[in-house]
Amino acid sequence: MRHQKDRILSSQITAHIGQTITMCGWLHARRSLGSITFVVLRDGAGTVQCVVPGAVEVGVHSVIRVTGRVQAEPRSQQGVELHVASLEVLEAVSHTPPVNISKQELSSSAPLVLEHAATTLRHPRRRAVFACSAAAMQGFRRTLVEQGFTEVQTPKLVASATEGGANVFEVGYFGKKAYLAQSPQFYKQTMVGVFERVFEVGPVFRAEPHATARHLSEYVSLDVELGFIENHFCVMKVVRQVLAGIFAQIGATCSRELGLLGVTLPEVPEAIPHIHFREVRARFGGEGQDLTPQQERAVGAWANEEYGSPFVFVTGYPMGKRPFYTHPEQGAEQWSNSFDLLYNGLELITGGQRLHRYGAYLQALQSRGMSPEPFAGYLETFRYGMPPHGGFAIGLERLIKQLVGASNIRETTLFPRDMNRLTP
Amino acid sequence: MRHQKDRILSSQITAHIGQTITMCGWLHARRSLGSITFVVLRDGAGTVQCVVPGAVEVGVHSVIRVTGRVQAEPRSQQGVELHVASLEVLEAVSHTPPVNISKQELSSSAPLVLEHAATTLRHPRRRAVFACSAAAMQGFRRTLVEQGFTEVQTPKLVASATEGGANVFEVGYFGKKAYLAQSPQFYKQTMVGVFERVFEVGPVFRAEPHATARHLSEYVSLDVELGFIENHFCVMKVVRQVLAGIFAQIGATCSRELGLLGVTLPEVPEAIPHIHFREVRARFGGEGQDLTPQQERAVGAWANEEYGSPFVFVTGYPMGKRPFYTHPEQGAEQWSNSFDLLYNGLELITGGQRLHRYGAYLQALQSRGMSPEPFAGYLETFRYGMPPHGGFAIGLERLIKQLVGASNIRETTLFPRDMNRLTP
Repeated sequence: MRHQKDRILSSQITAHIGQTITMCGWLHARRSLGSITFVVLRDGAGTVQCVVPGAVEVGVHSVIRVTGRVQAEPRSQQGVELHVASLEVLEAVSHTPPVNISKQELSSSAPLVLEHAATTLRHPRRRAVFACSAAAMQGFRRTLVEQGFTEVQTPKLVASATEGGANVFEVGYFGKKAYLAQSPQFYKQTMVGVFERVFEVGPVFRAEPHATARHLSEYVSLDVELGFIENHFCVMKVVRQVLAGIFAQIGATCSRELGLLGVTLPEVPEAIPHIHFREVRARFGGEGQDLTPQQERAVGAWANEEYGSPFVFVTGYPMGKRPFYTHPEQGAEQWSNSFDLLYNGLELITGGQRLHRYGAYLQALQSRGMSPEPFAGYLETFRYGMPPHGGFAIGLERLIKQLVGASNIRETTLFPRDMNRLTP
Repeated sequence: MRHQKDRILSSQITAHIGQTITMCGWLHARRSLGSITFVVLRDGAGTVQCVVPGAVEVGVHSVIRVTGRVQAEPRSQQGVELHVASLEVLEAVSHTPPVNISKQELSSSAPLVLEHAATTLRHPRRRAVFACSAAAMQGFRRTLVEQGFTEVQTPKLVASATEGGANVFEVGYFGKKAYLAQSPQFYKQTMVGVFERVFEVGPVFRAEPHATARHLSEYVSLDVELGFIENHFCVMKVVRQVLAGIFAQIGATCSRELGLLGVTLPEVPEAIPHIHFREVRARFGGEGQDLTPQQERAVGAWANEEYGSPFVFVTGYPMGKRPFYTHPEQGAEQWSNSFDLLYNGLELITGGQRLHRYGAYLQALQSRGMSPEPFAGYLETFRYGMPPHGGFAIGLERLIKQLVGASNIRETTLFPRDMNRLTP
């Protein structure tokens, strides 16, 4: 990135050893050694160490412009150092910041870090996380566009709670009630009737009444849906391509950030191993229609040991635990043509084949005691010809959480929303 | 786009003249000529004319698979025709669709077309509009990534009405009140402190109590913000690059769609002409702090005549009509460092330089009688060092409306939301 003729960014500096350059940015840290001051300058691309003659009177977060000579310096992080001849203060900050961001690690407690996001997101490790998020979205879209998918933007204000009544936010809408969409599920299916292959990147809303390390009220969903498939294994092939594309993009654009975070990108195997829910029960025991976190971890460990893969599909979940639009397994209708992808033993992606016949939808709603009326606009899609289709959704913040090994999803969300948090 | 080994898409067919191929899609139209039936097959990429021996018993929207020989046929739209040897019905539809989508134009009235979006979006001209929208988003992002911008995703659930109290939707939030964000303005400014240059593509919400052809309750905003600028003219340079990038991408990926819609892409001049608000008043008369639609059209006509440009910036709008974070013009504080971009005489983009000093924010809020308290998280950004910065926002649906010459913004929105419309 280069965006001012007369200015060099921290990411470009190693190409300028021996030259006199100008840099702009924030005073990120300073340490006085009497006759000189070490200053770390931070700009939009990263940081660089500067040696400034004399004292520097302004504080951390001040906006500065420095001119000086780039010298090789093996002891510094970037292998170079800027020997500053002139330092100009563009905006002086003198008061103490609420959180000290000058150290390598953010030592303040998490709530304080979240409360002061405006300044703590400036920390290089916080910044690095969201650089990876941006690259993930880019890789997601690029992979899909190359495979003939079309991007859509579907409404977040909807007339009824989409996938069942729970966990939905109510909105006052011109004297009536509206709801915030829990997913673009219905709309992406409808759009398969138009483009066959669609994707969407956008916010989804869940009124989760629990404060856990994994759940948020609002998160970014990477949604995919495609038609003319044979079954859910066709969808799983796209999952693999998309994951590979995401990690490739992060690797291509965020190598410095990955280094800073100490993260190694996982390898996505040519074929991600898969195991049927039935087989999970036979191998690992347990009971009921879903897997416990411990069982998910056991399956993850098995896939890692058996196939050397951090990723594994669990397929065929019991129909009772899947939403009404799920397609059953042919010849074994208690199982579904659905899947979860586990990444290091944690559920990351949910998907599957959907029902595509109008009659099947009416039957599925009836057998669950649901009225077809609120779904009229959606059901019209199936009344007028739909091919077999399916899709999946990835939670962006959860993907990045697993990648960087964060302990809480709030660390990989810019401005997290939960039942206790609505600011900043 | 190619996505099944054994299947050719309508976009690929001209490369297969003389070959026997298989296609899948929807029966889009049919016309019986006694011994043969003309069938238009529609797939995710477009349509192709097929000649089928004998009668075709299923109706429009049926999902079909056909195998046949591709022949040159100058009279057909694509210059080819598929002579079908076998037609297989995958999903039969026999009942009459709510709206006839088989004709070149959608003749049904707009409310009926919107009500039955699930099927009417399948019309090639409707599909073409949203193919252009997808390309526009792609071009927007690509241009900005190339210029060193980073994508962000900021929350849509916020604690207080952002840019003043009007037109905001209230959300029930765990027994408290939240609001839907009217723009990502505050967050994108905050993120300039992290990445310097950021963009976001996402929904924004306006509780517009008017049902006009230009306004929606929810639309897609293409947002940009950048730091270390001199003034709003630096922002306007990015506007020009972004517009050029958007139209270039539409041209590159949607040539068939543009042909179908009869749309010629506008040329974005190297330098888009600009005129100060003061000068607009001197030339075109009028009074007050804003321009009427007629005055906007007059400025648009002037730019077209004088500079041959469908685009023109009006700069310097009176401070009184701009939001509190607007930067005034140096030495003439009644004017602002802001701009509107008019496209064919209609406001398409609003932007400008923002205040960047903490004290200036406190003063701006006070002079408007606003309390700084609800803005605490936002103001922290400026309390801790911000460079001069600015940005802009483009309404995606409005951009495409102007491009394709639609008379109503609902025609360029997949599932529009307004005070009377919350479904489908």
